[in-house]
Amino acid sequence: MTHRSAPLRIHVFTDPDFRQSPAFAESRVAAALAAFPELAPRVTVEVSRDLATLEAALAEIEVLVVVGKLELVELAARAPKLAWIHITSAGVDRVPLDRLPPTVRVTNAKGNHDARAREFAMTALLMLNNQLPLFATQQREQRWAQTALAPIDGKTVVILGMGALGSAAARGARQLGLRVVGVSRAGREHDLADVSLPQSRLKEALAEADFLLITLPLTAETHHAVDASALDAMPERGGVINIGRGPVLDVAALAERLEDGRLGGAVLDVFPEEPLPASSPYWTTRNLIVTPHSGLYDADYAPRCLRAFFANVERYLAGEALENRVDPALGY
Amino acid sequence: MTHRSAPLRIHVFTDPDFRQSPAFAESRVAAALAAFPELAPRVTVEVSRDLATLEAALAEIEVLVVVGKLELVELAARAPKLAWIHITSAGVDRVPLDRLPPTVRVTNAKGNHDARAREFAMTALLMLNNQLPLFATQQREQRWAQTALAPIDGKTVVILGMGALGSAAARGARQLGLRVVGVSRAGREHDLADVSLPQSRLKEALAEADFLLITLPLTAETHHAVDASALDAMPERGGVINIGRGPVLDVAALAERLEDGRLGGAVLDVFPEEPLPASSPYWTTRNLIVTPHSGLYDADYAPRCLRAFFANVERYLAGEALENRVDPALGY
Repeated sequence: MTHRSAPLRIHVFTDPDFRQSPAFAESRVAAALAAFPELAPRVTVEVSRDLATLEAALAEIEVLVVVGKLELVELAARAPKLAWIHITSAGVDRVPLDRLPPTVRVTNAKGNHDARAREFAMTALLMLNNQLPLFATQQREQRWAQTALAPIDGKTVVILGMGALGSAAARGARQLGLRVVGVSRAGREHDLADVSLPQSRLKEALAEADFLLITLPLTAETHHAVDASALDAMPERGGVINIGRGPVLDVAALAERLEDGRLGGAVLDVFPEEPLPASSPYWTTRNLIVTPHSGLYDADYAPRCLRAFFANVERYLAGEALENRVDPALGY
Repeated sequence: MTHRSAPLRIHVFTDPDFRQSPAFAESRVAAALAAFPELAPRVTVEVSRDLATLEAALAEIEVLVVVGKLELVELAARAPKLAWIHITSAGVDRVPLDRLPPTVRVTNAKGNHDARAREFAMTALLMLNNQLPLFATQQREQRWAQTALAPIDGKTVVILGMGALGSAAARGARQLGLRVVGVSRAGREHDLADVSLPQSRLKEALAEADFLLITLPLTAETHHAVDASALDAMPERGGVINIGRGPVLDVAALAERLEDGRLGGAVLDVFPEEPLPASSPYWTTRNLIVTPHSGLYDADYAPRCLRAFFANVERYLAGEALENRVDPALGY
């Protein structure tokens, strides 16, 4: 490691309204750091849960870890030593990448959701294939009606977004015997996809999709990437899953097609507005299953995230390239 | 094949109220028979959907195929040539095995559900592990509350009943990385079970069960095989699946434990009373998912069932032992 005169100042800001913040409390951060004995003497780590404490430290912070929501633009302008912001989620859509000083590197928690993404993708795909959205609707209506089911093997899933989440989902889908069509920005070939297509050919891909599984992050380009016309490209009774970000999918257009039976079912873990308000029509949309942004949320998330972060701190101190660097131009 | 002077008289009775009866219509039976060209000249097959037609044929019927419900005791007594009754379901709990003439062999559709049982078991296990019963309950309450999830790999499922359905379910469970404890009448070792125990040790098995998956047929001995005390042997927040027969599980006792949070969730495909009446409390039981006896019901069921039946007819005419013989003493 390169020589530094003073310990690296790391500040972990934990949004008090964020569900995962307790998992990033001071004792938890210290426990994670204890696994890196060579690192401990070379860093100071402060954990705050209010803006006043963060403000007081701002002049000296070099690394800022953000757990939950934080308005970063003004803050960054007043943090002269800030060189690195780490976001503890995979999506960085709340981070104003284009308005941060260009010297500030941004990293995210990409890859930390892989095991969950694989298992939740399998769950949602099997639920769609086994008509659970229909059965849940019938249950709400207290109505018993049997339906014949078909095997999932040999069916086709289009996975939109073949990054870390999409790759993990593809692994699960293949384990179920599904044919995987991977759709990504560039359409580069992917080991886990039977066919790879660029996003410009999404509708063509969807024409043969039994299921569409969305994993895209939210960027300026992905808002309503799946709109009414994309949904209309799918075969009758197709199923839709979203484990990426809510605004990537036009949920209103999907709901309309579920209500009229044009599409067969959906499992949505994310929504444009979260938490979904009690007054939302989507709670009772026919053949729509709502899971509350939990599909990729596991109890071991924070410790695993902190381990990956401290491994990155070692790279930082050694002058090596950081893992999980967010590309400001791409937004992920 | 042995010589017979006249064609074998086969009669297929299709209960007009049974959902699958149209799939056993005359044209469907003829299509299945067409795959057995050597058999065609040696049998006559009649399909009826009313008791009068069946009655008229009774004196000559040697093989009776029953699709759905039929009162057999009186009928069998008036069918002097009847030698074989084939039931097109796996469960034969509606057949009064002990009151049929001892010369009448009974066969069932065991094994015909294997692929479905495997897939539906995987679906239900993943749903329990991913808190879908909880999320469905929250959806009914229009309430968004996130929950951290844990990986399914390494968890334990107790499969009660290690026959055809249980074996298929075990295959699916192992594919998900679950540890399988197989519980059967005799507790014989089973290739697909990590541990095999006799039913007398069910509670011991349940003490380490994250999930209990019931596949037992209904017999005099299996009524409420899973009762309140068995459920109380499970760890807190355990999950229950029933794909066997409804009365094997004390659903009232389960519902009580789901309501008070003692158990975590359930996916029930079968109920003591089916169809579940609109007035049933189980439609709205907390963390209980109702699927309408469809988990093992696939569109290809009838053709596959007929193929297996005609293959058995070849054995019958050759004087060989029939496959899927039901043991009247065991009831399956």
